[in-house]
Amino acid sequence: MNYPSKLIEEAVNELSKLPGVGKKSAMRFALFLLKKDENTSIALADAVRNLRTKTTYCKICHNIADDSLCNICNNSKRNKTLICVVEDTRDVLAIENTHQYDGTYHVLGGIISPIDGIGPSELKIESLLERVRSGDIVEIILALSSTMEGDTTSFYITKKLKDSPIKISSIARGIPVGGELEFADEITLGRSILKRVDYNN
Amino acid sequence: MNYPSKLIEEAVNELSKLPGVGKKSAMRFALFLLKKDENTSIALADAVRNLRTKTTYCKICHNIADDSLCNICNNSKRNKTLICVVEDTRDVLAIENTHQYDGTYHVLGGIISPIDGIGPSELKIESLLERVRSGDIVEIILALSSTMEGDTTSFYITKKLKDSPIKISSIARGIPVGGELEFADEITLGRSILKRVDYNN
Repeated sequence: MNYPSKLIEEAVNELSKLPGVGKKSAMRFALFLLKKDENTSIALADAVRNLRTKTTYCKICHNIADDSLCNICNNSKRNKTLICVVEDTRDVLAIENTHQYDGTYHVLGGIISPIDGIGPSELKIESLLERVRSGDIVEIILALSSTMEGDTTSFYITKKLKDSPIKISSIARGIPVGGELEFADEITLGRSILKRVDYNN
Repeated sequence: MNYPSKLIEEAVNELSKLPGVGKKSAMRFALFLLKKDENTSIALADAVRNLRTKTTYCKICHNIADDSLCNICNNSKRNKTLICVVEDTRDVLAIENTHQYDGTYHVLGGIISPIDGIGPSELKIESLLERVRSGDIVEIILALSSTMEGDTTSFYITKKLKDSPIKISSIARGIPVGGELEFADEITLGRSILKRVDYNN
């Protein structure tokens, strides 16, 4: 593309690196920023810069944090005896949005995937075991993806914790709320029949 | 939404101001930037900041430019006797991408739209008339949207230039290349029959 200005070209190139954003969307973003007042662009630029340069990771749960502790580990109202093990920050946000959980998290930073060269040592599993050993943890909830990699990771963690007295649970798998049976895949439907639960529970 | 970090919240808020970007996409952008190395975020932040603070408008054609003249007005190979009148920079880019035009442009910065409070004085029409009067312009091509507002603007410009000896043309309207007749709207199809052109031309 022939750009009338090098600065536009740079902005379009950088914006089009964002996931799902092509040159056309990036151009749309650039023209939007040019139309808006200067503060919009400056606020965006600062927010993007601070996001990467000023955030750190929580020392306890490895979630993204502004300081050495994240808002959740730092919150005295959260139940510190409960740990929900998740893959990344996105999952923390998804669970937080349900408003059904008041415990803490442990962000692994990925799941075991030999194909991508990610083994247990690349993840924050040792630090999770350390938390279990040193703290007064009562239960850990495994909330990993229901894929081969997720299951492998869950299995690995359970094996590592088999001598520990804590309770290990996993989020419920089954037909989603609002889901129609005919559109459910066979494995989910099959499992949801095998692992049926008491209706009154 | 409960964010684990204020900096993430700010970044998501700013990113979700971009057109067509909601909170979920903004979160996806933020997590993408957090995963990439620091330079990606810094380059994006700088490009966004420079886009708005360092670009200016071309003194001749009012297109976005890095200096007082845009790359097109500054290019000695472009035909300076030809002006293509467009609504905004996006249209310049679209026409440039066709590689069929070697003249200059005039970016009006909008089209006459009384409903949005945009009259001729809000647009760069006076400066276009000035260019026609002072320069040795041979032809101007009206390349505005085929809407009521676009047609009004074209009509206004033509009226203002009726005493001028220059040629005024308009981009061709008709059935798009690859378009099927049965899906064309009646007005386009009707006009394309009335304004039919010589087959050998």
